[in-house]
Amino acid sequence: MQERKSSPRHIILTSHPSNFGSQPIPIRWGDKDPMQRGPVVATLANPTHRNAIGTHSGGYAVYRALAVASGVLQADHRADLTNTSPVEHIGPYPSWYDPEKIVSLDPFGAMVGEAFASYYQEGYDIRPTIAITKAHVYLPELQAAVEKGRLAIDGKLLKSKGDVLVTKAAIEPVWYLPGIAKRFQISEADLRRALFEQTGGMFPELVTRSDLEVFLPPIGGVTVYIFGDLAAITDPNRPLAVRVHDECNGSDVFGSDICTCRPYLVHGIEVCIQTAQEGGAGVIVYCRKEGRALGEVTKFLVYNARKRQEGGDRADAYFARTECVAGVQDMRFQELMPDVLHWLGITRIERLVSMSNMKYEAITNSGIEVVERVPIPDDLIPQDAQVEIEAKKAAGYYTPGAVLDPLGLAEIKGREME
Amino acid sequence: MQERKSSPRHIILTSHPSNFGSQPIPIRWGDKDPMQRGPVVATLANPTHRNAIGTHSGGYAVYRALAVASGVLQADHRADLTNTSPVEHIGPYPSWYDPEKIVSLDPFGAMVGEAFASYYQEGYDIRPTIAITKAHVYLPELQAAVEKGRLAIDGKLLKSKGDVLVTKAAIEPVWYLPGIAKRFQISEADLRRALFEQTGGMFPELVTRSDLEVFLPPIGGVTVYIFGDLAAITDPNRPLAVRVHDECNGSDVFGSDICTCRPYLVHGIEVCIQTAQEGGAGVIVYCRKEGRALGEVTKFLVYNARKRQEGGDRADAYFARTECVAGVQDMRFQELMPDVLHWLGITRIERLVSMSNMKYEAITNSGIEVVERVPIPDDLIPQDAQVEIEAKKAAGYYTPGAVLDPLGLAEIKGREME
Repeated sequence: MQERKSSPRHIILTSHPSNFGSQPIPIRWGDKDPMQRGPVVATLANPTHRNAIGTHSGGYAVYRALAVASGVLQADHRADLTNTSPVEHIGPYPSWYDPEKIVSLDPFGAMVGEAFASYYQEGYDIRPTIAITKAHVYLPELQAAVEKGRLAIDGKLLKSKGDVLVTKAAIEPVWYLPGIAKRFQISEADLRRALFEQTGGMFPELVTRSDLEVFLPPIGGVTVYIFGDLAAITDPNRPLAVRVHDECNGSDVFGSDICTCRPYLVHGIEVCIQTAQEGGAGVIVYCRKEGRALGEVTKFLVYNARKRQEGGDRADAYFARTECVAGVQDMRFQELMPDVLHWLGITRIERLVSMSNMKYEAITNSGIEVVERVPIPDDLIPQDAQVEIEAKKAAGYYTPGAVLDPLGLAEIKGREME
Repeated sequence: MQERKSSPRHIILTSHPSNFGSQPIPIRWGDKDPMQRGPVVATLANPTHRNAIGTHSGGYAVYRALAVASGVLQADHRADLTNTSPVEHIGPYPSWYDPEKIVSLDPFGAMVGEAFASYYQEGYDIRPTIAITKAHVYLPELQAAVEKGRLAIDGKLLKSKGDVLVTKAAIEPVWYLPGIAKRFQISEADLRRALFEQTGGMFPELVTRSDLEVFLPPIGGVTVYIFGDLAAITDPNRPLAVRVHDECNGSDVFGSDICTCRPYLVHGIEVCIQTAQEGGAGVIVYCRKEGRALGEVTKFLVYNARKRQEGGDRADAYFARTECVAGVQDMRFQELMPDVLHWLGITRIERLVSMSNMKYEAITNSGIEVVERVPIPDDLIPQDAQVEIEAKKAAGYYTPGAVLDPLGLAEIKGREME
């Protein structure tokens, strides 16, 4: 590693408004005119320009810091954004101009290059928080669906080799703190204090800089996969299928049979392709919220406790073990999830490929109409995942079928630990 | 959401050693006796017990903070860890007692319940940073490998329905800062300062609490999948296959054809199963380092720039576009990666299923012998991923085949943006 210039200057533990010679660009969240709304400036190259707490790339900022520490990256590196702009335009939509509709991402995050061109000329380092590209994706299960006649190759969306053309967007979290607080019906001061104290003291600016209202938290973001014609997404006269999927690495990648995650995700993609082929569009929203946002260590601890508890793993005790270990059954906060749907301009979902009552309520409470809810087909549920699905149906998950009573739930048992 | 008690007490922006009435338990990293080594205490319930910077669950601590803010979780909730202990024992191994062999995870992280039992009785809230469980996994590609005769069902490891029995471990990052600094050959003070400043001011304790040497960063961790007999992992007379795989959501889950990630991962699993069936074992290490630890927004920006540059997407310009956008080609820091192999007690790898020279050098430089390097079979490389694989081979990736010269690289072209 190369030598590093020693920095004799004083370490500033937390900034205060008075530290700023020049006032940072104000952000007027929800303003229709992006220049009035103002860019989110979370650069580390010029501290006087910063108008947000935290920095870009979520937790990957820690790796960036390692790169600077080890001398492989200059701290003042400026991104060369040539040719990186979105390959498809999304928005603006009326939902972008409502300061309460979208509070956990920056709707202008993909178009910073055009919306804030004049600031770039003034030397501001404004980074996109959303990137939009295209891809060909191939899932072996879709090939099987073609062979079974459930999906038809059209040569345009679903190609002859079974690959699918998608438009996809990666979205970094950008939190407008007054809006987040309002969404949870708490005071902004309580929110800021908890975010600071309950993370072990992350970002003192949360409590010292009440003038900075935007926070880029070090959490995973969201990826959107769009199937079919983008114009259909916002057209209430054309069908739209949506699945909002929360990450489950063990199933999504490795195919663990204790849950329905990958099978339901693939079914969602199938419905998206069918709906696009009918002249509509399909949207998969993939949220980085591993293990119900409790993380994978907690998830595996809960698996052990479920399999080993007296009476074995069973549907009537499904939620209790998570609550013992984590204190809650779920930490995903679906209240924030609809933001991405509003960024896409969605007002009506013909087919919501989800049984989650929490997701359904969050979506409909945010003003989006849901016509039909599509449960996972029974034959896609792995045997060991019956515990999960029956427990969830009994707890309020949507099902057109029967819901088991406590006695019935106690009889739904999972595999023992080998 | 329920009402929240207002907290009239003063907000402490950063702690100092003198703030502690009682001294926290010292950590003597690398000590053989866990009671001498000391537990990592990152609880938020009792600040006087903390002997580490940051808290548990990586970035998911932010969701935990939301749960406390919104009133669904009590700030002083203590995990009930009944029945959560590892279902298989891993270690201790001699590598655990070398303070320089493992610096980015806590080798005792899975066995806190037994190693620190007396501290629990004294009221310390010590959380496991590693969880070990078992699972059945099913990947459609493995079923195809069975049908093609490459894999044989044995009824024990590879079951009749094509599902595979695995032992798996989730590991949270736990950084011993003096060891991390030494690994990168920089001073601990420079490391701490960069981690604080280059994240936008995350965790002032990094610079105010030099007495706290352990840091739990808000980044993703590692998942280990073990195939076959665990005892074979540490037995140099039995074959061991290893693939260290860095997360690529677009390919691993959705099967994007611009890279080789999922095909190579599945091939690694296939080699792991074969090696286990030969009487050895296989290990897949899955590292949460999306987009070379640059994050997915940067990755998609780079895709756009590659496809749109003059002359189109081609192997001779593959790395340049990442460097333009991110300032570096790669931020994964494979220097820290071998820690998990040392946690598993690995001293010899018969088959390393990776072509990465960075991974190979990190592993062998850490003292692990590598006998054979297994490249991805040519027929598994998607057409559009030829750009990546040829560029990487030319840049030093292992290949038993030919390496293209600059003229040849310029002729390897990817699909245009549609």
